[in-house]
Amino acid sequence: MLQKIGFIGTGIMGQPMSVNILNQGYDLMVWNRTIGKTGLYQATGARVAETPREVGEWADVLILMLTGPEAIDAVLAGDRGALTGKTAARTLINMSTVPPDYTIRLGAALQDQKIAFLDAPVTGTRKPAEEGGLVILAGGDAEKISEMEPLLLAMGKKVIRCGPVGQGSAMKMAFNLLLGTLMAGLCEAVNLGRGSGLPFDTVMEALRSGPLDCGLFGLKSDMLEQDDFPAQFPLRHMAKDLRFALKTADEKGIATPVGQALFQLYRQGDWDALGDMDFAAVKKVLDAMNDASEEGAR
Amino acid sequence: MLQKIGFIGTGIMGQPMSVNILNQGYDLMVWNRTIGKTGLYQATGARVAETPREVGEWADVLILMLTGPEAIDAVLAGDRGALTGKTAARTLINMSTVPPDYTIRLGAALQDQKIAFLDAPVTGTRKPAEEGGLVILAGGDAEKISEMEPLLLAMGKKVIRCGPVGQGSAMKMAFNLLLGTLMAGLCEAVNLGRGSGLPFDTVMEALRSGPLDCGLFGLKSDMLEQDDFPAQFPLRHMAKDLRFALKTADEKGIATPVGQALFQLYRQGDWDALGDMDFAAVKKVLDAMNDASEEGAR
Amino acid sequence: MLQKIGFIGTGIMGQPMSVNILNQGYDLMVWNRTIGKTGLYQATGARVAETPREVGEWADVLILMLTGPEAIDAVLAGDRGALTGKTAARTLINMSTVPPDYTIRLGAALQDQKIAFLDAPVTGTRKPAEEGGLVILAGGDAEKISEMEPLLLAMGKKVIRCGPVGQGSAMKMAFNLLLGTLMAGLCEAVNLGRGSGLPFDTVMEALRSGPLDCGLFGLKSDMLEQDDFPAQFPLRHMAKDLRFALKTADEKGIATPVGQALFQLYRQGDWDALGDMDFAAVKKVLDAMNDASEEGAR
Amino acid sequence: MLQKIGFIGTGIMGQPMSVNILNQGYDLMVWNRTIGKTGLYQATGARVAETPREVGEWADVLILMLTGPEAIDAVLAGDRGALTGKTAARTLINMSTVPPDYTIRLGAALQDQKIAFLDAPVTGTRKPAEEGGLVILAGGDAEKISEMEPLLLAMGKKVIRCGPVGQGSAMKMAFNLLLGTLMAGLCEAVNLGRGSGLPFDTVMEALRSGPLDCGLFGLKSDMLEQDDFPAQFPLRHMAKDLRFALKTADEKGIATPVGQALFQLYRQGDWDALGDMDFAAVKKVLDAMNDASEEGAR
Repeated sequence: MLQKIGFIGTGIMGQPMSVNILNQGYDLMVWNRTIGKTGLYQATGARVAETPREVGEWADVLILMLTGPEAIDAVLAGDRGALTGKTAARTLINMSTVPPDYTIRLGAALQDQKIAFLDAPVTGTRKPAEEGGLVILAGGDAEKISEMEPLLLAMGKKVIRCGPVGQGSAMKMAFNLLLGTLMAGLCEAVNLGRGSGLPFDTVMEALRSGPLDCGLFGLKSDMLEQDDFPAQFPLRHMAKDLRFALKTADEKGIATPVGQALFQLYRQGDWDALGDMDFAAVKKVLDAMNDASEEGAR
Repeated sequence: MLQKIGFIGTGIMGQPMSVNILNQGYDLMVWNRTIGKTGLYQATGARVAETPREVGEWADVLILMLTGPEAIDAVLAGDRGALTGKTAARTLINMSTVPPDYTIRLGAALQDQKIAFLDAPVTGTRKPAEEGGLVILAGGDAEKISEMEPLLLAMGKKVIRCGPVGQGSAMKMAFNLLLGTLMAGLCEAVNLGRGSGLPFDTVMEALRSGPLDCGLFGLKSDMLEQDDFPAQFPLRHMAKDLRFALKTADEKGIATPVGQALFQLYRQGDWDALGDMDFAAVKKVLDAMNDASEEGAR
Repeated sequence: MLQKIGFIGTGIMGQPMSVNILNQGYDLMVWNRTIGKTGLYQATGARVAETPREVGEWADVLILMLTGPEAIDAVLAGDRGALTGKTAARTLINMSTVPPDYTIRLGAALQDQKIAFLDAPVTGTRKPAEEGGLVILAGGDAEKISEMEPLLLAMGKKVIRCGPVGQGSAMKMAFNLLLGTLMAGLCEAVNLGRGSGLPFDTVMEALRSGPLDCGLFGLKSDMLEQDDFPAQFPLRHMAKDLRFALKTADEKGIATPVGQALFQLYRQGDWDALGDMDFAAVKKVLDAMNDASEEGAR
Repeated sequence: MLQKIGFIGTGIMGQPMSVNILNQGYDLMVWNRTIGKTGLYQATGARVAETPREVGEWADVLILMLTGPEAIDAVLAGDRGALTGKTAARTLINMSTVPPDYTIRLGAALQDQKIAFLDAPVTGTRKPAEEGGLVILAGGDAEKISEMEPLLLAMGKKVIRCGPVGQGSAMKMAFNLLLGTLMAGLCEAVNLGRGSGLPFDTVMEALRSGPLDCGLFGLKSDMLEQDDFPAQFPLRHMAKDLRFALKTADEKGIATPVGQALFQLYRQGDWDALGDMDFAAVKKVLDAMNDASEEGAR
């Protein structure tokens, strides 16, 4: 018998992920802080809860897809919290991106409540989320991962087993560190080419003509060309994730000097009110640093 | 009638490039500073010159594939220099990586000698060089590029027209800036994953499972795993190219804060006697910065 | 009547500070984790406690001079903790360097226990501590600061009122950020001068001949010359304080790009097992980064 | 008999320096690109030349106080150049700040013309220049320095002998590197203190209460408080000098990671049209990077 799945957080990513769960025949209950984001579920067979607590009391498995530790604490605890009532859920899967140390603390707290815990952030953005093509970085007990694999594969194409709880989150930090590097690196290279007088198309053709090309560059090319950055993955979240990544690196004794340079750029974007744009808007941060008096800066 | 091609600099890249020219039926004369590197040509139909001057007096088109401005100045000028004698060559194609400002000065000097000049660095390393799969970033007069295109396509699969002389070099700077970024970024992400307890294979699988994957990561994966860095593109050259790139960026008024962080790493590698290894050995620079007392640093 | 003062943490700084309190006629009880460090008090009129709890039950005013939040938590809480028993102390003065957010949380906890709290870190090292020449950066209720000023002036020459609780700590972060900058800046300038062929004495004479000279440069000159760094202020603590400072800056929205560069250096020193040396040993971190093959690097 | 001194470059620094020479009884001829800057000399006994060449043909000793290599090349060479005519000058003293490698090339060129050369940049700004209180960092032949010492001491209070030609310039690079570090470091510390809620005066009092205080901080305090930066030493020149310093460091194999961070800030200021302000306006560069939405950023 398929389990009853409670899904908390139906935003850019959580919405298509939960729809894919529903489409696989699971019984689904959703909750979202902004009520508007759950309206569409009413036409489907999914239930829409009024509180996280209602989800926790109904579901066998609770999935979280939220913006970070604060949002998770807010839905789990408190009067209306998912773990406050007569919690039915025996398994919690956190798919939100959070720091490893938070993950480990959450896992310990859940153990006290006899709730099994998987740490399962994803790589990929809205489009693979819609297509069930996410990659899931799973940390936790190996048997529990196996048990949950069919559910996870409703949302993704692949489950990578990262080791114990915390290592899924750690791997996600590393992934986003590389993601942020590639994006900022592309922007600096484009700016150097453009500043030297080459047209945008020629610069991109040259950069993408060899072993440096990757899917990301294809996904972001139009944004860079049109200087328009509708959010797929908001810059604010990249800034936050890099903050997590550098904190983890500092604690683990790993030097990340390039990461430090990146963080300052994305954070600058967030501080300059670009936080709601796509993280490719790091281009605007770099553009603003160019010599305004130079022809080349354009 | 096919032209007589003089090729100066038959090192890691120049050797397969010149062989491809020969294989297309061109008449070829080569010269290399280290005589040992030209021995193999004697079994083919190619001529081996004793001095650069001999090449300049024989060839219609002179191609340079050298390590930088100093090496170019050394082969062109002086008693035995390629442009000192009764130079026959009416076209010079510089395929070496050099700064745009050097390229522009060289172009001006050649104009005084009524020698047409193309600025045509390549992207790609030894393997695409062997397969004729290089991408050629050509700067110079458009008609001259068209005239030379068959010759260029003997060495590469594509000629990207970058604009006037200097812009081929500039585009190459931008390309190598991105190349250096991706390599260092991969190493920091791998170290963060490894430092968090994940096995190397799992980290690479996760990093390469989505839109970040690129040919480069495939090419370098074994080097990283085995901590062994036989040079395809020596770290010393990456350090030098980044120095050029940052100088160009500074002159053009382009901010490259991530590039600054990179440069310090690759230069450190060169200063730490890793210059002859592949540039992926930037991993060793980062490893040496990790906390030696931490388990996680391994 | 003079108060009974409990002093917890009689290390490099705390020892001379507490002795100055005793010398002003206050009744003193001390406690230190390492028992050896309190032996000398037995010849004076001071009491030596067996546990922090004993100090808390005896003193009117409790002063802490410890290495950071963990050490403070360890002496205040737990079975033997200074605030666990029938605490007599009605005022707690924390003179340790800690992050502002920790200070604010500690202040709130003490308020619940009806214990007045001053946040009073100091600037200056062992020598001014011995001479009662410290500068005290006091945060807290203005009347309480006035009440405690005679006691504070037993240890220091000046009390700077920084505002509410937390702002003493914040000012100390800013001070140490500047301290770390001056030290690292001096080392880079010395290395550049030395690497250009000038003798150490000439470089120092030139750097100190104008408006850049400061007491710090005098204090550290011998260490730099002799490449020997007996700890006055251990490098490990500088690394820790810069970590605090950058975290505070990040939270407050203050950009500190120079501070980021510094932090990486001092942390590197700590990771390279220089943590117990004086923070001037950042020179060794920089020296190790120089080109080993260059004459100039010496 | 006192020599005839030719002084080229009577700007912010050169004007008071040349007046001090005149006041010591030397015969003086001046030239400046902007004619307005030499008007005041006509009331004194000094001659005002129409061309640099006129100065070179008249003076025994030629002193240069210009903005850099380009300006020096412009006054020495060409039809109207100081070294083009029947040059009388047998000694040239360059007091401008230039890179060591330029100095060495200039020295070699002068040797060919049998003109003795001193490399003698100064530390100190307008005020010490007026008071004859500069410190002169002299590179060159030791006997020649001794011979010129009375002339140099007309402008300064101290001559520091730095070694052969080039090492005066090198020492000046190192000095300005430290100057730039202290200024930027002060600004970051002030911003961290201010962002934490402390008043400007309190922050400055605390930062200046101990061994960190230096003359520079006194000189710049008003500028920082009033956010008004009339140029004593223009930010553009600091950016240029740091560019020189980092290039020298790179060539000598000296790591200057803090210097790299500084350079990016001062260059940003120059690119942001702050180049004509005092270099203390690096504060404005940092302020612009703060989180605009934070109260703390003010």
